[in-house]
Formats: sequence, structure tokens, C-alpha cells
Amino acid sequence: MDDNSSSILAAASSPSGAGGLGFITVHAPATVANLVCGFDVLGLCLHEPYDIMDVRLLDEAKVIVRSADGYPLPEDPAQNTAGAPLIEMLKEVDENTGFEVLIHKRIKPGSGVGSSAASAAGAVVAANHLLGNRFSKEQLIQFAMFGEKVASGVKHADNIAPCIYGGVTLIRSIFPLDIIPLTTPDLFVTVVHPQIEVKTADARAILKHNVLLKDAIKQWGNVGGLVAGFLKEDYELIGRSLEDFIIEPVRSMLIPGFDELKKRCKNAGALGGGISGSGPSVFMLSKEEKTAQDVAQIMADVFTHLGIDFHTYLTKINGEGVMVQR
Amino acid sequence: MDDNSSSILAAASSPSGAGGLGFITVHAPATVANLVCGFDVLGLCLHEPYDIMDVRLLDEAKVIVRSADGYPLPEDPAQNTAGAPLIEMLKEVDENTGFEVLIHKRIKPGSGVGSSAASAAGAVVAANHLLGNRFSKEQLIQFAMFGEKVASGVKHADNIAPCIYGGVTLIRSIFPLDIIPLTTPDLFVTVVHPQIEVKTADARAILKHNVLLKDAIKQWGNVGGLVAGFLKEDYELIGRSLEDFIIEPVRSMLIPGFDELKKRCKNAGALGGGISGSGPSVFMLSKEEKTAQDVAQIMADVFTHLGIDFHTYLTKINGEGVMVQR
Repeated sequence: MDDNSSSILAAASSPSGAGGLGFITVHAPATVANLVCGFDVLGLCLHEPYDIMDVRLLDEAKVIVRSADGYPLPEDPAQNTAGAPLIEMLKEVDENTGFEVLIHKRIKPGSGVGSSAASAAGAVVAANHLLGNRFSKEQLIQFAMFGEKVASGVKHADNIAPCIYGGVTLIRSIFPLDIIPLTTPDLFVTVVHPQIEVKTADARAILKHNVLLKDAIKQWGNVGGLVAGFLKEDYELIGRSLEDFIIEPVRSMLIPGFDELKKRCKNAGALGGGISGSGPSVFMLSKEEKTAQDVAQIMADVFTHLGIDFHTYLTKINGEGVMVQR
Repeated sequence: MDDNSSSILAAASSPSGAGGLGFITVHAPATVANLVCGFDVLGLCLHEPYDIMDVRLLDEAKVIVRSADGYPLPEDPAQNTAGAPLIEMLKEVDENTGFEVLIHKRIKPGSGVGSSAASAAGAVVAANHLLGNRFSKEQLIQFAMFGEKVASGVKHADNIAPCIYGGVTLIRSIFPLDIIPLTTPDLFVTVVHPQIEVKTADARAILKHNVLLKDAIKQWGNVGGLVAGFLKEDYELIGRSLEDFIIEPVRSMLIPGFDELKKRCKNAGALGGGISGSGPSVFMLSKEEKTAQDVAQIMADVFTHLGIDFHTYLTKINGEGVMVQR
């Protein structure tokens, strides 16, 4: 893999192929999907962690995706979360062009903070930049959702949209695509990633196809409250709205210590939080940095006590999304 | 009934009982609950039509409710939508006080624009004014919901909250009560009331207890979109969010001509709309008065063609709610 890495980095300073202007590096950040009550429709973008992606224009219609870290990747780029979106993008490009992508994977796959979305979103934002930004953000999301389909079998945009737009985004609808960027609240986000495996496909499979109407009503009351809380900058309302009567009761069973963790974090002053995406990561929102630090300590205590390895991140909400390095 | 009417109006100018300060008249407006996607959680307040309610303080702990229009009312005030809330309020009042209410009913019961909520909300706002405004709006809603329970068997606040707060309100939760006043958009509202009977209790009974998760997801995407549309004053987003995959497909079967009506109104430029509350009234939102007039004409055409009597109202969103006449 070192060979791949050096060959691409060499291209960066080389006039060969698409030339010096044909190379770019982007930071593709982690994201928190669902935001407890907003299953499949809400997500927010984090500053940390992020993948680093080096993307080079090719003068032939092909897509190459390589890992800089030794992660095994499918040989067929159509089976790769970064490759599939680029193949879709190339269908809309007339000229004889392709992309070579080198991924420095810092967001652990399967952690529940949008690792696949970062690869997909980072690839299309970088490629679009190399093509002179000819595609809109909506089009980039359409391309990037092919990466999510590779990863989980389902097109969804609740990680991709905040990764591309930044901030908190509402995905009102997938078909047709209707993305509503909301805001970038000045909140601290503490995330813990316990080192247990929860596959997105499995986390979807355990959900019931039917829900009680009375629970659905509570849920859309909370979605309305959360959207209003973000737009009115009413942080207490955000906290009250972070409850989930449908998904969390089922999925939290896959995360040891979840109930205790959530209760202790809220007692310590966190506004609220829950499972990030399909888990196993758990996130908490806090108004103050000190609270967010206390929350990180509680997260560490809980998983240390359970004998489960973990990482914690203390970060803020990222209003920019995928960042093009100049 | 004329006798009752004159006895109360006489009290208005009489120094007897609670005296001249012990009498008040309020206008209690109609409301549109649900707003298509927001079943049980969203509602808005109209300027027209409204009930006129004369309320007088009594110096004994009793509640009397009378109709000025000859509508038959239950003798037991606890069985009346205005009486039940006042009985609840009196439980929180120490002094030996009661209320006599005369209702000039202009909002036709069973029309689906919050007739029972207007009686309940008007009664408690008037009574609270006579008591020196000692109760908060949240407390008034708690009292008024006892009127909705009398009317439909279920406590709900999606008419009462906008009737008391004005504008568009979100009821994030009933237990515990959490009302989020959103905004008063500068939109025209056209309402048609076809003279067919749809009882709230029946309209609730035909709903399924279970809904598909995939439909619930679309629904809370739309609730989020509608709340964002109101707060961002994005009228096109409001229009796109006014769709309902759960309630309208069932309830619209009770309203002849509904599908044609909705389609023609949207084609004429209405942002969108649907069943008001549990029906049979149908409402449409429009940006321009001319569009709202065209919509009223379409509504008239449809029900004339069907041979169904109807009333139409062309009004705006009322930011004040129940109005105390000075």
C-alpha cells in the first residue's frame, strides 16, 4: 500500500496526466445521522474525526480507489463506497476523464459516524472540484448515495447531506431529493466509539416494519421540536426533543451499557443524545465545553468498567462539511 | 334562549354579583389542526370564523353555560366543551367564584375547524381575564383540553394551542405538555366546509393503530420540513411539506370530491393544503389573495357540482388567538 500512496503523492507534484491542477486533497468529516428522533431525516457534521482523501484526475474513463492505510478494499471500484459515486458521476461527464483516489482512513468503518458517507462525499466533492464545480450539491448527494447503497444496501442521505452541506441538515425526502440545510449550532459534541461491531445492515434488519401510530405521533412531535430548537437556537428544546420511542428502544440493545451511559451523561448536564447512526457510537450534545469533557469521562468510565475498548472524541459541529485543502 | 341571553347581557351593565368588572366578551377563533402532515402536533389560528362568548363572574362556585343561538347544550356543564374546562379551573381557585357563559356559536360544530376548541379556549381565556390573569397559557391549555375530551373522548391540543397562542403552534408533547409557538406566516387561508357530517370520534376510529415505518419516516421528514418552512419563511418548502402518507389517504374517503379539489387548488397556485382537523372542512394556503379567491371558486365549483351545500371562508392566519374585547 505504501507503493500506491507514493505513486499518487508523486502525481501531485508531477505535470504528467491531468497535470498539477488535476490533483486535490480534501478532508471528509464524520457525521452523526438520525439525531435520536430523526431516523433517516436528520444529521449533523463533525469537525473530528475526518478522512484525508487525495484525488487525481485521469485522462481515461476509469476509477481507481486505493487505501493508504492497508485497509482491504474491493478490487471492483463499483463495490467501493468512494468508487461507486465516481462511476455514477462519470456517466454525466462527456470528456475522457477518470479519477484515482487514495484514502487515508481515519474514521473507523462500522463505527456509526458516517465512515462510508465520508468516503462517498469526499470523493464526489473532490472530483467535482477537479471538474470545475460543474455539479450542484444536490447532484453530488445523488452520486454519493450510490456509495451508501454499496455500504448498507439502502440509499440514504442522513450522513451524506451534512457531510456535503455542513451543519445540521434535514432530508425531507429522498425521492425526490429535498435537502434543507438548517443551522450550525454552537454546541459541543462528545462521541464514544466502543470497539464492538454493529453492521448498518444488521442494525436495519432488527427494526420492525410497523410502528404504533401513537409512537409515530410522539416521534414527529419531537422531530418538529428538534428542527424548531435548532432554528430558534433554543437549546433546552433541543434537549427535550432528543427522545426516540421507535428506533432507540430496539437498537440500544446492541450497545452494552447504553441506558446507564445516557442517564449519567444527562445527569452531568448534557442536553441529550443517543445512538449515532446505526451505532455502536453514542453522541451527546452539550452547551459548555466543561460538560462535554465530563461526558467524555463518563463514557470512558462506563466502557472501562465493561471491559470494552473505546475511543472518545470531543468536537464541535462543523458548518463547512468536506473541506478542500488549498 | 332569548331569556338566557338577555339575563346575561343585563348583568353586563349591572353592579350586582361580581359587578361591572366581572363581565367580559371574547372572540374565540376557528383553528386548523394537523396541517396535513402534523397529525396531533401542528395547528394554526384563523381570523374567521369566530365564536363570541360573554362570560360573567358569579359569587358562588358553579358553572352555567348557555347558548345564544338555540343550539341544544347538555344540562350538565361537565358535559359541555366550555363548561368542563371551567370546572377544572375552579378546582384551582380558592375563593367562592363561578362563571356564567353565553355562547354565540358562529363556528359550526362538527365542521373540522375547532368549534369545540374555540368554546373551551374562549371560556378559559375569558375566565382567566376575569380572575386577573393568574393562570399561564400552558395552564389554560391544560384546563381547555378537558373540553376536547368531552367533545371527542381524547385530550388533544392541536386546536386549543393555536386558539390560545395564535399563529402556528407545535405541540411537541401532550404528557408532559410542551407547546412551541412557531410563527404567524403572512399567508391566505381558504376553507371550505361541505355540509356533510364527519364526527371527530368516527374520524379517529377509522385510523389504523399501526403504520409502516417507511411511511412514518416520510411523515416526520415532512413535519420537519413544514416546521423549517414556517420558521425560515420558505413558502415553497411549506408547500412541498404539505403531504400526508398516513392520515389523509384514510380520512379523505369521507370527503366527496377531495382528490379533485386538492389537485385543482394546487394547479391554481395554492401552496398546498388538505383536511382541516378531522374534516369535513378542507383548507388551502396561498401566498396571494387572488390565488386564495380562485381557490374559493374552485371549492364552490366542486361542491356545487356534487350537489353538496357548503360555506367558504377566505381569511388570514391570526397571530393573536382568543381576543379579549375592551
